[in-house]
Amino acid sequence: MTMQDAHTPAENGRGETAHTVIGSHKGYREGSRPDIRVPVRRVHLTNGTDVTLYDTSGPYTDPQITTDVRRGLPPLRENWIVQRGDTEEYAGRELRPEDDGLKHTSPRGGLRNLDAVFPGRPRQPRRAGRGASVTQLAYAKRGETTPEMEFVAVREGLSPQFVRDEIAAGRAVLPANINHPETEPMIIGKNFLVKVNANIGNSAVTSSIEEEVEKMTWATRWGADTVMDLSTGRNIHTTREWVLRNSPVPIGTVPIYQALEKVDGRAEELSWDVYKDTVVEQCEQGVDYITVHAGVLLRYVPLTARRKTGIVSRGGSIMAAWCLAHHRESFLYEHFSELCEILRAYDVTFSLGDGLRPGCVADANDEAQMAELDTLGELNRIAREHDVQTMIEGPGHVPMHKIKENVDRQQEVCDEAPFYTLGPLTTDIAPAYDHITSGIGAAMIGWWGTAMLCYVTPKEHLGLPDRDDVKTGVITYKIAAHAADLAKGHPGAQEWDDALSDARFEFRWEDQFNLALDPDTARAFHDETLPAEPAKTAHFCSMCGPKFCSMKISHSITERFGSDDSAELSPEEIERGMLAKSKEFAEAGNRVYLPIAD
Amino acid sequence: MTMQDAHTPAENGRGETAHTVIGSHKGYREGSRPDIRVPVRRVHLTNGTDVTLYDTSGPYTDPQITTDVRRGLPPLRENWIVQRGDTEEYAGRELRPEDDGLKHTSPRGGLRNLDAVFPGRPRQPRRAGRGASVTQLAYAKRGETTPEMEFVAVREGLSPQFVRDEIAAGRAVLPANINHPETEPMIIGKNFLVKVNANIGNSAVTSSIEEEVEKMTWATRWGADTVMDLSTGRNIHTTREWVLRNSPVPIGTVPIYQALEKVDGRAEELSWDVYKDTVVEQCEQGVDYITVHAGVLLRYVPLTARRKTGIVSRGGSIMAAWCLAHHRESFLYEHFSELCEILRAYDVTFSLGDGLRPGCVADANDEAQMAELDTLGELNRIAREHDVQTMIEGPGHVPMHKIKENVDRQQEVCDEAPFYTLGPLTTDIAPAYDHITSGIGAAMIGWWGTAMLCYVTPKEHLGLPDRDDVKTGVITYKIAAHAADLAKGHPGAQEWDDALSDARFEFRWEDQFNLALDPDTARAFHDETLPAEPAKTAHFCSMCGPKFCSMKISHSITERFGSDDSAELSPEEIERGMLAKSKEFAEAGNRVYLPIAD
Repeated sequence: MTMQDAHTPAENGRGETAHTVIGSHKGYREGSRPDIRVPVRRVHLTNGTDVTLYDTSGPYTDPQITTDVRRGLPPLRENWIVQRGDTEEYAGRELRPEDDGLKHTSPRGGLRNLDAVFPGRPRQPRRAGRGASVTQLAYAKRGETTPEMEFVAVREGLSPQFVRDEIAAGRAVLPANINHPETEPMIIGKNFLVKVNANIGNSAVTSSIEEEVEKMTWATRWGADTVMDLSTGRNIHTTREWVLRNSPVPIGTVPIYQALEKVDGRAEELSWDVYKDTVVEQCEQGVDYITVHAGVLLRYVPLTARRKTGIVSRGGSIMAAWCLAHHRESFLYEHFSELCEILRAYDVTFSLGDGLRPGCVADANDEAQMAELDTLGELNRIAREHDVQTMIEGPGHVPMHKIKENVDRQQEVCDEAPFYTLGPLTTDIAPAYDHITSGIGAAMIGWWGTAMLCYVTPKEHLGLPDRDDVKTGVITYKIAAHAADLAKGHPGAQEWDDALSDARFEFRWEDQFNLALDPDTARAFHDETLPAEPAKTAHFCSMCGPKFCSMKISHSITERFGSDDSAELSPEEIERGMLAKSKEFAEAGNRVYLPIAD
Repeated sequence: MTMQDAHTPAENGRGETAHTVIGSHKGYREGSRPDIRVPVRRVHLTNGTDVTLYDTSGPYTDPQITTDVRRGLPPLRENWIVQRGDTEEYAGRELRPEDDGLKHTSPRGGLRNLDAVFPGRPRQPRRAGRGASVTQLAYAKRGETTPEMEFVAVREGLSPQFVRDEIAAGRAVLPANINHPETEPMIIGKNFLVKVNANIGNSAVTSSIEEEVEKMTWATRWGADTVMDLSTGRNIHTTREWVLRNSPVPIGTVPIYQALEKVDGRAEELSWDVYKDTVVEQCEQGVDYITVHAGVLLRYVPLTARRKTGIVSRGGSIMAAWCLAHHRESFLYEHFSELCEILRAYDVTFSLGDGLRPGCVADANDEAQMAELDTLGELNRIAREHDVQTMIEGPGHVPMHKIKENVDRQQEVCDEAPFYTLGPLTTDIAPAYDHITSGIGAAMIGWWGTAMLCYVTPKEHLGLPDRDDVKTGVITYKIAAHAADLAKGHPGAQEWDDALSDARFEFRWEDQFNLALDPDTARAFHDETLPAEPAKTAHFCSMCGPKFCSMKISHSITERFGSDDSAELSPEEIERGMLAKSKEFAEAGNRVYLPIAD
């Protein structure tokens, strides 16, 4: 395994998406073959050492790669997919105006809004050859280690065999649609680093294609491991195309949203045919995982009637409405095996949605929620039989003392399939701070076994997140995920904390900033109090001032007693050392604090 | 018990300190006598009901009271203190220039900086009469229920006897210096609502008296239950005087900071006499609780030498330096009984400081920390014998899986004395977001039994908090405290969540905002997406837009099945109901969504 370094260009200090994170350098770790190059974020410290961090930001932070959102990212996995020889290109489904929510032919382009169409290289979709199972789960079951698995192994610092075994057991998923070769493979499972998903998506109310692509690159720059495109307004198909072609991380969607657009928002007009058509459309585009609310059964709907906040999942409420309107069992549940066959042909991963998740702490862990979870466990087994990778979505709003039951029960009922939770929010009283109410729950549920955390932004319950909200949401959830990695004792997780703590103790301010999850904000906050450049190398903190710095005093203690881990001192040695040091202290003029120029 | 309402003045929308929180009204609950008037924040909802919330904001949010920071707050408790007849006024210690960190006589005033001296009514300090024990603990031990205890009982919705018994058992403290009659009594103990402390304080580097007073009123406006004045620069005495005379909440300090100023920052020149002089000075001013790092023993100091970040507590490192310089046991430890006698004479509460708390996750729960905790347990018993109320401070930086051990061990070693923790921070990698890294730990440790949480602001490790940071810190910690109250099942805690969730489900946007911990920000975030006034009453959320709102769909479900808790439906009734409702649905034109004008 070798490390390659890319040079960092001069930064403009504004943390632009197109540049390396300030103070970090893009590097790559090579696997067993030259086309397995795993990106890392390397922080060169002023003491000459390096810290290597997991990197989700894609080619955008590599100054040696020129990216162009109009052309899309290079298809990293294309050769791997083609070389397996088990897939075929085909004409694909014909695009229709309703794919973009358009009812009429547009004035200039006939069927589509040509101004917005993605201009990159033409491509045909790919699908499994007749009878083939082309999912990472199928390969893992057969004992085949794919380049994707090896990429993930290098990325996580684990063996390819371990990665394969976790996928084969259904304890982890590697979402990688064969029509999204641009992704850098990543894995979601409780025995790996806890992952973070960021939601983007326009809505009927606001936002544009450009904003969504920018939000995606922005979210991955700060550490989002996957991105869900939850668009519900116009141009859904086209927005998704731009996002997919430019995304280095797996993209998830909720196809029922687009299906509903195709029937003008009338849930009762939904049908298996419309839904299936939408799923095929998205599979061909390259969506890596889809949320399917197939656990919202007709008989569960009345269980929500006495809830404080009913059904709060959009997908869940759409399906509940359909069930009510037709007084029939959910078409998602009834056609689930057929859906599995579609997903298997593209290696699209199921995210079985918790359509009946609680929307307030009062509704947490209730009968409706747990009934649906049992059904998700049943569907997970069916998906597995079809070789389709599967994860399970979880709540929601849950007070702290009811969180652990959620993971424990999900792991039991769903045969340890990866849990993918939204928060949970631990209280309902703080709209505008729900990244925090939920970050608390997310850290805890991550510690207890959740594999991926779906972020919540400060705008939750209030509006659509802007660029700043996306960053705040991602950073908050990276904190939760990393706190969980620490608590789980993930190998290597604490190295990052230790490097930053060392820098803090040794007054290496620049290293502290560069090692921070968000170097820009850490540096800016410090500069507000002590703006002068020399303060960043000064031997005191900006909180205490020169005379009071406790770190400074601690240094003199460390110098007195040494910090060589190899030797244990006996009480006598300590006593002797202390007497000697006390004498030294007096001889040095009782100077506990190093002299600092004012 | 009666409720009185004050009228709310017109608001300027900027959330000024001097006005009621927008959407809330000041009210009072009366106790058994007319001079026990417990403030509450009442939110009148648009559906005609009221929600009553705990209120820490003092007279500032009562439009019927004219406050003037130059005169100070009315002495609410003065009659209670005087009527007990066990205290006396006396001349008090003479003020000296070094009390304010001044070395020379100032040009205009001789001994003091007269421009800054607090201009309020002249007062003499008060102390216990000869041999009297005037602490709430002493009264509780004797079975006396004080007006302070009754005030707290009304405030917490519990019986005065329960309050008295918890104080008598040492499980709770009611910090209330007889020289700070301006405080509205509050209680800190695991069987009460979890409390939040906010730190303020100028330093050698920056900030002014006015800023500190403003930070105090600002912090209590958002919910700080106590405030610690950690000033270390000039004008320490005078700043504290302004803060005390204007503070409706207990004020805590760390006297060693001021003592160190008096010896020009040279720790080795500290002495029991300088320290004692400083404590008396602060007791006479009215400080309600003081942090004392008496557990940093000489023999513990070497235990920190091999730590990653040594000693990070300022007080702890000052005492460690003193012990090293003199090679003697800490004067705080050796004179602890004498210190108890001083505190007992004023009813000042101990906050036994954890001078050896870990400064990074690597150092958590180590030998140094636990050795000091044992000593704090010993000191707690001594303080109790002297009738001095005591709480115990806790860490610091602790990964999630090591948090519970901290509370459990503290509760065991310290005979259930209230635990008062800083965070803990659950990871070190996120400077600029340590309100979040620590809010996670704070919520958890609160759930497990911590009685008061010391806030951490976004500026932790980087600089001094400004007004916005103080607010962010307080709100984050109110979330943690309330999440803990919910998880502990504190009676009444969930009513707040339920009221907000009801408002959310019923699209009462104004009620949602007004019930929020921070109504201003919640309203502002909503308005960014949907600024028009009608949107606040519209039957859809700003995330989903009119067609998609899941709350809307849920409503139709609730309407179909009813939400009358008094009746359980049999499966047959449900089935029958569903058929009927399905028919209704079709007859109503398959309209799941209410029509909304575009």
